[in-house]
Amino acid sequence: MKATIFYAPGDLRVEQVPDPKILEPADAIVRVTHACICGSDLWFYRGLTPFKPGWRLGHEFMGIVEEVGPEVRTLKKGDRVLAPFAFSDGACEFCRKGLQTSCLRGGFWGMSNDGGQAEMVRSPFADATLVALPGDLSQRGASESALVKAILPITDVMGTGHHAAISARVGEGSTVAVVGDGAVGLCGVLAAKRLGAARIIMLGHQRRRLDLAESFGATDIITSRGEDAVSQVIKMTGGGADSVLECVGTSDALNTAIGVCRPGCTVGYVGVPHYGDVNIKFERMFRQNINLNGGVAPVRAYIPALLADILAGRLDPSPVLDLTLSLDEVPEGYKAMDTRKAIKAMVVI
Amino acid sequence: MKATIFYAPGDLRVEQVPDPKILEPADAIVRVTHACICGSDLWFYRGLTPFKPGWRLGHEFMGIVEEVGPEVRTLKKGDRVLAPFAFSDGACEFCRKGLQTSCLRGGFWGMSNDGGQAEMVRSPFADATLVALPGDLSQRGASESALVKAILPITDVMGTGHHAAISARVGEGSTVAVVGDGAVGLCGVLAAKRLGAARIIMLGHQRRRLDLAESFGATDIITSRGEDAVSQVIKMTGGGADSVLECVGTSDALNTAIGVCRPGCTVGYVGVPHYGDVNIKFERMFRQNINLNGGVAPVRAYIPALLADILAGRLDPSPVLDLTLSLDEVPEGYKAMDTRKAIKAMVVI
Repeated sequence: MKATIFYAPGDLRVEQVPDPKILEPADAIVRVTHACICGSDLWFYRGLTPFKPGWRLGHEFMGIVEEVGPEVRTLKKGDRVLAPFAFSDGACEFCRKGLQTSCLRGGFWGMSNDGGQAEMVRSPFADATLVALPGDLSQRGASESALVKAILPITDVMGTGHHAAISARVGEGSTVAVVGDGAVGLCGVLAAKRLGAARIIMLGHQRRRLDLAESFGATDIITSRGEDAVSQVIKMTGGGADSVLECVGTSDALNTAIGVCRPGCTVGYVGVPHYGDVNIKFERMFRQNINLNGGVAPVRAYIPALLADILAGRLDPSPVLDLTLSLDEVPEGYKAMDTRKAIKAMVVI
Repeated sequence: MKATIFYAPGDLRVEQVPDPKILEPADAIVRVTHACICGSDLWFYRGLTPFKPGWRLGHEFMGIVEEVGPEVRTLKKGDRVLAPFAFSDGACEFCRKGLQTSCLRGGFWGMSNDGGQAEMVRSPFADATLVALPGDLSQRGASESALVKAILPITDVMGTGHHAAISARVGEGSTVAVVGDGAVGLCGVLAAKRLGAARIIMLGHQRRRLDLAESFGATDIITSRGEDAVSQVIKMTGGGADSVLECVGTSDALNTAIGVCRPGCTVGYVGVPHYGDVNIKFERMFRQNINLNGGVAPVRAYIPALLADILAGRLDPSPVLDLTLSLDEVPEGYKAMDTRKAIKAMVVI
């Protein structure tokens, strides 16, 4: 089969590798039909995080079950499935708490595991990890391809934006600020609106993304940076936002998020940190009782509710996927995202 | 009247100053009977935080109402009252949310306001700020002086320890780690036990304080530091604590708190930060979904529940007050706390 392999920063190749095989009785082999390239993939693409030559790429995918191991109970060959970006056993303390990203036997797709930017994937703990979709998506009022495109972002970015909003305690009537106009920030706008936010202020810089934020429900757009952006938000909200979604992962973004908080506000942080330790304006946090909740999103826990809303036509994050490619074109997709020509690429395999 | 005045780090003096007067219709004048010296007072005493010569000292006190302004409704001359370390109007958005430390018209005792280490205090917003005690404390099963000593810590340290435990989401059966064996950390042990913690691990270094922690309900004591302490707690809890109370306020203490977290854990942070920005091990926080909740404790919100438990004999933080002084001896109290000869000094006026 073909799979995307990391050689060096800026050098990814789609190459022939051996087909995956069932190794454990709870495994399934999935033939990938759709995958994505993630903003967090750009960190190793840019050489900002350590990555080993030979590692597989891609942690967002959907596909068709090709084969199941003898212990798999809920899936069979031919089922259409969706995978969150982490696999998990569904049985440990953390899986039972809905924190599947901390599963004691789990892991993340790609690197030394199979990656989703490939023709096939071996999924460990298939029953717990994979989520089966209804048999005939085309009967649900939208075309099958439109529904697949709407569902694909809940493998990661839509679940991550939702984690930011849940962690930030967004509720009915909340005033919410979203720091970052990438795919996660945009999904954060959708998530905040879905949870009842009355006002959603997007802080970003790319016109096309900000237009999308508005179509997703952002009521205000702030394009200035740093202290200017902070003082604008403080002024327009009469003292700061109730909830802030931090969707970038840098010290600056985190301090902007803390800066725009109303006293007692909670920051939902989901931006992948890629600069090591961060220097936090702790005194402001302390004086104003600002909370910092979040982390890597346990997307598996959120898939059922988000999927139900997508199938019912109440949620559609598909516009974040603004570039469609074939598997062979994956390296071009990284380039398009690295140069901000695309928000997020969908790979149709 | 006499009041304690800041001259310079290490140089505090008890001096004659003009008696306070009613300035606003909601004011009350309180004749102070008991005050405390706080661990956070040591920051300016040591020159670690900026403080102006001439500023008043003391933010923890009880006393008797001497006079009330024309708008005061719930208090009268002769009432015995308790003051949280911040005054607040009881009416603004944040007071209504129970976040009185962010009151839009509020402030903190001492500095340019009257301080509690004095014979009298003018209290703004007396109805909202001061809490009246039952008329005859001596009828409640303990001596009046024992009850006063038990009540006095809820002006600050007991309410702050409770805020740490509430912020850290301590509940029935929780495994809790407490970082810091000062008066706040010790009260954090009491608060965690009161909220149902099954296991309370105290991280500290002073034998006498650790003995007190055990008598308050700590089940385990860790005296090593840094990475050693972290790995001990991780090992003994099989992966970390459910809730961690950070009761120091330094980068090191905060990173120890983050280090001993179980995935999904919440750190309740209440240690007063006095080194400006802090450098946080953010990658661990992110990967393990560690939450950081807390800040300066809105003690006013907690006084009714804590006071009820003290009057009912279910809670007694008085052992943290291990030194009793007269007002003239206040400078010696700072010295005793600075050199760790005392945990916390009570001033009887």
